[in-house]
Amino acid sequence: MTTIGFIGLGNMGAPMAHNLRRAGHDVVVCDVNPRAVAELEAAGAQTAASPREVAERCGIVITMLPASVHVRAVYLGDTGVLAGVKPETILIDSSTIDPQTARDVIAAAHAKGCQMADAPVSGGTGGAQAGTLTFMVGADDALFERIKPVLAGMGRNIVHCGGPGNGQVAKICNNLVLGISMIGVAEAMALGDKLGIDAKVLAGVLNTSTGRCWSSDTYNPWPGVIETAPAGRGYTGGFGSDLMLKDLGLANEAGKAAKQPVLMGALAQQLYQLFSTQGHGGLDFSAIVNLYRAGESGNA
Amino acid sequence: MTTIGFIGLGNMGAPMAHNLRRAGHDVVVCDVNPRAVAELEAAGAQTAASPREVAERCGIVITMLPASVHVRAVYLGDTGVLAGVKPETILIDSSTIDPQTARDVIAAAHAKGCQMADAPVSGGTGGAQAGTLTFMVGADDALFERIKPVLAGMGRNIVHCGGPGNGQVAKICNNLVLGISMIGVAEAMALGDKLGIDAKVLAGVLNTSTGRCWSSDTYNPWPGVIETAPAGRGYTGGFGSDLMLKDLGLANEAGKAAKQPVLMGALAQQLYQLFSTQGHGGLDFSAIVNLYRAGESGNA
Amino acid sequence: MTTIGFIGLGNMGAPMAHNLRRAGHDVVVCDVNPRAVAELEAAGAQTAASPREVAERCGIVITMLPASVHVRAVYLGDTGVLAGVKPETILIDSSTIDPQTARDVIAAAHAKGCQMADAPVSGGTGGAQAGTLTFMVGADDALFERIKPVLAGMGRNIVHCGGPGNGQVAKICNNLVLGISMIGVAEAMALGDKLGIDAKVLAGVLNTSTGRCWSSDTYNPWPGVIETAPAGRGYTGGFGSDLMLKDLGLANEAGKAAKQPVLMGALAQQLYQLFSTQGHGGLDFSAIVNLYRAGESGNA
Amino acid sequence: MTTIGFIGLGNMGAPMAHNLRRAGHDVVVCDVNPRAVAELEAAGAQTAASPREVAERCGIVITMLPASVHVRAVYLGDTGVLAGVKPETILIDSSTIDPQTARDVIAAAHAKGCQMADAPVSGGTGGAQAGTLTFMVGADDALFERIKPVLAGMGRNIVHCGGPGNGQVAKICNNLVLGISMIGVAEAMALGDKLGIDAKVLAGVLNTSTGRCWSSDTYNPWPGVIETAPAGRGYTGGFGSDLMLKDLGLANEAGKAAKQPVLMGALAQQLYQLFSTQGHGGLDFSAIVNLYRAGESGNA
Repeated sequence: MTTIGFIGLGNMGAPMAHNLRRAGHDVVVCDVNPRAVAELEAAGAQTAASPREVAERCGIVITMLPASVHVRAVYLGDTGVLAGVKPETILIDSSTIDPQTARDVIAAAHAKGCQMADAPVSGGTGGAQAGTLTFMVGADDALFERIKPVLAGMGRNIVHCGGPGNGQVAKICNNLVLGISMIGVAEAMALGDKLGIDAKVLAGVLNTSTGRCWSSDTYNPWPGVIETAPAGRGYTGGFGSDLMLKDLGLANEAGKAAKQPVLMGALAQQLYQLFSTQGHGGLDFSAIVNLYRAGESGNA
Repeated sequence: MTTIGFIGLGNMGAPMAHNLRRAGHDVVVCDVNPRAVAELEAAGAQTAASPREVAERCGIVITMLPASVHVRAVYLGDTGVLAGVKPETILIDSSTIDPQTARDVIAAAHAKGCQMADAPVSGGTGGAQAGTLTFMVGADDALFERIKPVLAGMGRNIVHCGGPGNGQVAKICNNLVLGISMIGVAEAMALGDKLGIDAKVLAGVLNTSTGRCWSSDTYNPWPGVIETAPAGRGYTGGFGSDLMLKDLGLANEAGKAAKQPVLMGALAQQLYQLFSTQGHGGLDFSAIVNLYRAGESGNA
Repeated sequence: MTTIGFIGLGNMGAPMAHNLRRAGHDVVVCDVNPRAVAELEAAGAQTAASPREVAERCGIVITMLPASVHVRAVYLGDTGVLAGVKPETILIDSSTIDPQTARDVIAAAHAKGCQMADAPVSGGTGGAQAGTLTFMVGADDALFERIKPVLAGMGRNIVHCGGPGNGQVAKICNNLVLGISMIGVAEAMALGDKLGIDAKVLAGVLNTSTGRCWSSDTYNPWPGVIETAPAGRGYTGGFGSDLMLKDLGLANEAGKAAKQPVLMGALAQQLYQLFSTQGHGGLDFSAIVNLYRAGESGNA
Repeated sequence: MTTIGFIGLGNMGAPMAHNLRRAGHDVVVCDVNPRAVAELEAAGAQTAASPREVAERCGIVITMLPASVHVRAVYLGDTGVLAGVKPETILIDSSTIDPQTARDVIAAAHAKGCQMADAPVSGGTGGAQAGTLTFMVGADDALFERIKPVLAGMGRNIVHCGGPGNGQVAKICNNLVLGISMIGVAEAMALGDKLGIDAKVLAGVLNTSTGRCWSSDTYNPWPGVIETAPAGRGYTGGFGSDLMLKDLGLANEAGKAAKQPVLMGALAQQLYQLFSTQGHGGLDFSAIVNLYRAGESGNA
């Protein structure tokens, strides 16, 4: 069985690496945070001093990093992955970054004779821990088949989105729709409430009609509609507003690079920025509804 | 069996009145368009010269009118419904109008000793003809139970949304979410296409992830994704862009009256206005995707 | 000298009526607020019990009312102006309302054989008191020349904007630009501050370059840039945010009626609505800058 | 007199370098385009093979480049300016780029013992040729005094905007206001026209009232209002829509980096993107008014 390198042991990466261990893989980890490394070491992982060393010692390398700038550094830097790879190494980046950077790094990997896939995830820290993540994979067919069993150790749905970069495209397009529809539902719930309709009744109408969407029927932002949603526990946990802000930023950046208008997406990004500037970026992203509710958190 | 009056025999009202006839009701119709009246007469309906006369002759009166100004005129005018009603008459307005006008007219009806419900519909002309409309009803419990069997002659889902005006609130809030999410899906599909992902693959990701919504999984605006959607037939038929523009206008007007912000709703309305100004208001509302596609209809 | 009727003695109307008295006119006033009437009476004005009575006793009638609904009632109601006018009466409405209502009422006045102009003002309560208002007049040439001397008793600039309704058009188009440019300046000042430039230096650049506008060079929203602007006194006085919200609402309503997109105008209206919902509608409209400043009034 | 290096001989840079020659300076030029280099050589300039060589031979180096990526490459690359500078060299970047890149490069220059200013310009190619540019300079006081006479050979207004990066901040904040107010004026002129007011009359009202701004009184987008503006010659010449799109992109990127909302700025960027996608990015930026005019260029 191939030794798997794992670089980036944050809130997402650490539980993913643990699940690889549990699935029986030999794992070599690396992170700038020594405590995160120590925890994995305690769970039986080996450690490496640099991404280059990880690459030198592993047949498969997985990365889970915060942003494009880290991905470029970890792959392309002097002590980076591409400085240590052998031609046959398989690389998988599960960070959520802009498609162009993903494609640039993949091209650099190809130049070294490696195969590389982008495979961002959805499902949050809960899914990372439970091993139920969805992976959106950009890779050619052969590579997809090759890495699918590896990803299956960390997730439940492994979706092939097309060639290199298309995993990122799928992820940011999905979250573009998600951010927009969440604000749309927030506006409708707040308007309906102000006009006197019961929130559960309104949600019931939306959920059985053409307004039906995940933001309403599964994750409704109005308190009391869905007990188990973050709205039922003060918007704690879940997917943070600042993470949604980041992903909407990626979508708008991609639109700019592709010369493609995204008017609603730009407004959604700005509303999350406003919400964050007002001090609420740490709340679940459904808390954006409070921007519309005088007297609630998120509102003066 | 009570004789039912039906005022407003347009694209929606005419088939609804026909269905009442088919359900075995005695129907008295009235419209400014003599041809529409003649067609119903040929189907066995009686006719009346004015809304007042309809009210004088019927125990139940249903109206289906284009906009608030017509509803006010038909109910409150000198030859209007309220000039002819007896105290026990039941009134049902199925027009889609602003909740305030609905509540004003209902209050005027109450002052005459009548009961009145607002009951706007969704389902389009197809649903009107097939008798499969959804009715969103604002009425107290007793009235709702009383009118439910009547509405069942014209529709399949009869949803109780709360007291007077709440049918309208439910309708405009639903269409607010619908208009916003349709543009959101349009932006995401157009962005994804520009970035190189296959449209069906992208729709598949959305539909199984958090971007899931009716605008994507049932009515996707991108050609080739859902064969039976308007996008598969040049955006003909369906729910016209100018009707969506009207409903978003109602939502924003309601927001203004209620002093409630609807930022995404306002942008959605403006984008449909831009699309309409550019000459495409007659296309199905999913055609808004063409605003984002250079070289397509809806784009220079 | 013709006796002048004045209906509507609010914050604007009362000082305007006083100035007419000071200019030597016989004035007959009318208002629903008895205290306002008493104050004018103490200043030598006569009083009338209804708009109709004002019209019966005066050759010229001026109205200054809050909104379209009041203008319709005061002119078209049973005890309204048009119920009392003689054919030769001259009517001037200085309210700020939508152009369509202005034109409807003017048409009704014409039907009575009267001449009527719309003449909304800018300059605020300060200008009303000082008699330095600007009047934007919609009237044919002969009527404009006829009423110009009357208006000159209350204002300094009497601008002929074209035929009936065009005074309102000029006013709402001006305030549309004003609301948009104020928010634009607010965003730029807040962004510049965050990026480290001195506010006075930035304003200096704007004011001598292509960003030059009244919102920057005369009424800059950033504290400390212009000592005499509302920003220098906690955003008190000036032109209230809720009045700007009203005028942006008129512009967007006019756009809707004319089927004309106003995307930036719609966003500006919504931002003022958000600011108002958050409890700051009473502040001067330049306080919108606080929406962009964490920790300031207008921000949680 | 110090020899001056000039790197970047595009539409702006070439005439600027010519003006330095005319002002009597010894000039060493460098560009990737050999024709542009040959033209300057014919005018008496010396040439260098790389930015590094320019830096080795000159006491002052000025750069005028398209975007941040070029600035990084020209300064920080292996054959870049900083590879060739002596400690006493003075560096001036007149490119319009994001403030963060400007500050990063300036910090790198400081690390080499050089002084460096950012000095973006306004005034367009016309101003570059006529030597009437405005320079917005970010530099400490001593450096500003030192470079002012050099810049005076290429421009008329040399504005000190504060320390490093503040020239860029001033430029992008000014153009943020400019882009927003131009669209605001476009919406108001188009709305006014639809409502029946004469365009010159409306512009006259704006220009003497609170809507007054450069976009209305100097560069009005409506044809026929200002004969000498681009609107009077089919929106040719002037400042291209795609350049405005670029600058609004910089403002929004800066807002994102600074965690500062710019809602109107984001919408303005998107509207210019939409206009560009529809094929009109080459027109002067005041042509955005055509987005609002059915049947005009820029509209289907």
